[in-house]
Amino acid sequence: MNQTYKDDGLALHTDLYAINMAETYWNDHLQNRKAVFEVFFRKMPFGHGFAIFAGLEKVIDYLSHFKFSETDITYLREELGYQEDFLSYLRDLRFSGTVRSMKEGELVFANEPILRIVAPLPEAQLVETALLNIINYQTLIATKAARIKGVIGDEGKAMEFGSRRAQEMDAAIWGARSAYIGGFEATSNVRAGKLFGIPVAGTHAHAMVQAYQDEYTAFKKYAERHKECTFLVDTYDTLKSGVPNAIKVAKEKGENIQFKAIRLDSGDLAYLSKEARKMLDQAGFLDTKIVASSDLDEDTIMNLKAQGAKIDDWGIGTKLITAYDQPALGAVYKLVSIENDHGEMEDTIKISGNPEKVTTPGLKKLYRIVNRQSHKSEGDYITIEDEHPEKEKPLKMFHPVHTYISKYVTDFDINELHTTIFKNGNLVYELPTLQEIRTFAKENLNVLWDEYKRTRSPEEYPVDLSEACWKNKMNKIHEVKEKVNREAVE
Amino acid sequence: MNQTYKDDGLALHTDLYAINMAETYWNDHLQNRKAVFEVFFRKMPFGHGFAIFAGLEKVIDYLSHFKFSETDITYLREELGYQEDFLSYLRDLRFSGTVRSMKEGELVFANEPILRIVAPLPEAQLVETALLNIINYQTLIATKAARIKGVIGDEGKAMEFGSRRAQEMDAAIWGARSAYIGGFEATSNVRAGKLFGIPVAGTHAHAMVQAYQDEYTAFKKYAERHKECTFLVDTYDTLKSGVPNAIKVAKEKGENIQFKAIRLDSGDLAYLSKEARKMLDQAGFLDTKIVASSDLDEDTIMNLKAQGAKIDDWGIGTKLITAYDQPALGAVYKLVSIENDHGEMEDTIKISGNPEKVTTPGLKKLYRIVNRQSHKSEGDYITIEDEHPEKEKPLKMFHPVHTYISKYVTDFDINELHTTIFKNGNLVYELPTLQEIRTFAKENLNVLWDEYKRTRSPEEYPVDLSEACWKNKMNKIHEVKEKVNREAVE
Repeated sequence: MNQTYKDDGLALHTDLYAINMAETYWNDHLQNRKAVFEVFFRKMPFGHGFAIFAGLEKVIDYLSHFKFSETDITYLREELGYQEDFLSYLRDLRFSGTVRSMKEGELVFANEPILRIVAPLPEAQLVETALLNIINYQTLIATKAARIKGVIGDEGKAMEFGSRRAQEMDAAIWGARSAYIGGFEATSNVRAGKLFGIPVAGTHAHAMVQAYQDEYTAFKKYAERHKECTFLVDTYDTLKSGVPNAIKVAKEKGENIQFKAIRLDSGDLAYLSKEARKMLDQAGFLDTKIVASSDLDEDTIMNLKAQGAKIDDWGIGTKLITAYDQPALGAVYKLVSIENDHGEMEDTIKISGNPEKVTTPGLKKLYRIVNRQSHKSEGDYITIEDEHPEKEKPLKMFHPVHTYISKYVTDFDINELHTTIFKNGNLVYELPTLQEIRTFAKENLNVLWDEYKRTRSPEEYPVDLSEACWKNKMNKIHEVKEKVNREAVE
Repeated sequence: MNQTYKDDGLALHTDLYAINMAETYWNDHLQNRKAVFEVFFRKMPFGHGFAIFAGLEKVIDYLSHFKFSETDITYLREELGYQEDFLSYLRDLRFSGTVRSMKEGELVFANEPILRIVAPLPEAQLVETALLNIINYQTLIATKAARIKGVIGDEGKAMEFGSRRAQEMDAAIWGARSAYIGGFEATSNVRAGKLFGIPVAGTHAHAMVQAYQDEYTAFKKYAERHKECTFLVDTYDTLKSGVPNAIKVAKEKGENIQFKAIRLDSGDLAYLSKEARKMLDQAGFLDTKIVASSDLDEDTIMNLKAQGAKIDDWGIGTKLITAYDQPALGAVYKLVSIENDHGEMEDTIKISGNPEKVTTPGLKKLYRIVNRQSHKSEGDYITIEDEHPEKEKPLKMFHPVHTYISKYVTDFDINELHTTIFKNGNLVYELPTLQEIRTFAKENLNVLWDEYKRTRSPEEYPVDLSEACWKNKMNKIHEVKEKVNREAVE
């Protein structure tokens, strides 16, 4: 590469403003002032009824290694003109904060804290961009995958085939991992398979058929080396040439191969799959599956299934890996509390003309309220740090904007959704395996009523504030409005 | 990380099918058979009139280092069951092909070869996924950036602010680089600044105002350490509090700071910018600029400008870095020629029910035909390898599908658009600097009539085939159709 400086760390993977703010705080002797930031998003992606959190493992790796390298320091000095005093502060900086977070695979909804960080102000600010960059993408893709897998159902395999259309290399591999968390069964990306232990899938391309000029030879040559055979049958003419050639080779090879599947990659997948199924069945290949790919997403899959398409397994590329219909989650990172000059924590709020954009102040806890009779969730419940909602019987739950929408819950289990990940900079969390995360995500879905699982117009899952949390917010709004009005008059 | 295998190379950054095809070829003793593949896309992204090629530098880095690591080999053996004979072939594999490509910053259009690769069949197949992964994203973002910058014009600065919404980390930094190639002036991502030498921009967030509780103190503290000041003025109330506080601090600090700009990040940017401009002017800050951000894209910018918004510089995030309205380019990698059993090259074609998806066979050259009178391009012109279009006066240019659309060009310059990058695996291309690439991209735009530069309904730029190339394609279509019909009858 044409590079002056080595790519030897991620501390500079931040928006410049974080460094300028850190410098301001440090210059004002506020470098040890404690601040509380929260990560959350305001709107459910794809209009889906739930989202699935992913990204924590990479966040942990990032925070564990947070450190300005010598080339970072040189760059900041030579190219951006930062001065030595501030640079020596940066040089010694490590992440020393406390992080509580949802686990990967957890169900997450709009306006609830995914992750909260208590750290010295400059540190908390410096890690914002990277945390959002990671969580926004991985959560988006895990959610999109769950949405697609929900339509495919347990009987079919969902395979992630999007690497070539992913937004650069990290997206390809972390997208594959996120899709696996969201319920996919495999990826085509071998590096993702190697790094994360995801099952990999794939056989051959049209190019192989072209290279051999005809399908029969191509399939035969493939079968000479590979016991498990999936033949791509649409290079020339699926029903006239592709499927018959696949059957011909499979018959010739007999027990020497396992004729696992044919793959359709173009044309009318409903019609072709039904005809191909008949041909396979008539030839005695009842167990040979039909895999389809070709710009698929949850809507197309649902339509194909509604038309009785005989497709067993699904390869999903572009629409999954880029989250094509909504390629950004929009999670934000907001200050909710800060230490004042007297060493006390003071809650902060960001108000906005848009009511949805008003933040909820304070250090908070997040719970899921599960009905003991139905074993289904009644909603999520946000309290201020020192409340004890588990002791409240009945528990009053109400909508934080339309407060008249309320209910009382009596017989419930209450599960706190945050786990301590870092304590004063030390990693205290034992990372689960990817298999465990995936199983966790799958089991979490059991707690949701079907109403929240529709791909179109699902019910809105309740994310409620405790009365104390709500009142604290209202007071803060009032306080800030008064202050602004006062200042404006001056 | 929870990883069994080290991430120590990119050879496995491929779809699994490439490895299975490579194994098939190797098993069939075709590992030295020469193949020609081309990268191209079929549809102009965003309906834009031109695209800008980016990604070559990373492609070069990838191909230069192409090598299966020992952990790759172990993974393939232990987890995927590949056998030792094939693995020892893979272990010794390096990229030995010849690559001709457009330069980064070149104008590129649908259905013309961006890059062509002549290499032993398995090698050519193994690099497909990574090449597309890189080129698809970087070209998409360079094009989106050019589209946005085209609306902003030369008088305003375009700044890339999208890292937090980028699809993982590679997208953030390579997206910043691509945006710079496409005409942007700066990025907020400091790592991208460090690695690529892109100017970085950014000041402070709402959180800093919240941390100090009021704007006046926050701005003052910032100004105590930073000479160049851009103040974010929308935390509470832009016109009642933000702008007045910014002006107050700027007046107090006088010559000690340079009051560079205010930044608007919410609200009605047209109204607020006009009012803020008046306030700044009345206070004597005629040179203080107004920067706007807030979910901007080319449409919103054009609308704001049409309403006379007084915005000087623009920060563009989500909509640029994810190419929100079309998050994938859709470039493909197709076999166009292959060596036969007698050592001769034989052209191949992929036919399809969809005429746009039929490939153009053969080893080809790509030219831009520039009119000597107007200095504007007449279109691009694709020939088979050994033609001499520079000698044809007049040159006949015709539409490759609607062939009656044709013209003769007499007084023209003819520029070949491909440069040799690798020759038999050796890098023979001297990489330009990023500044040179960006200047090249900018100058290339001069060759285009304005008709191709509109953001809505631009004219379709001609990408024509020479008569010989067109005839070769028609013959191949006929040949394959005959063959398929014959085989289907059997």
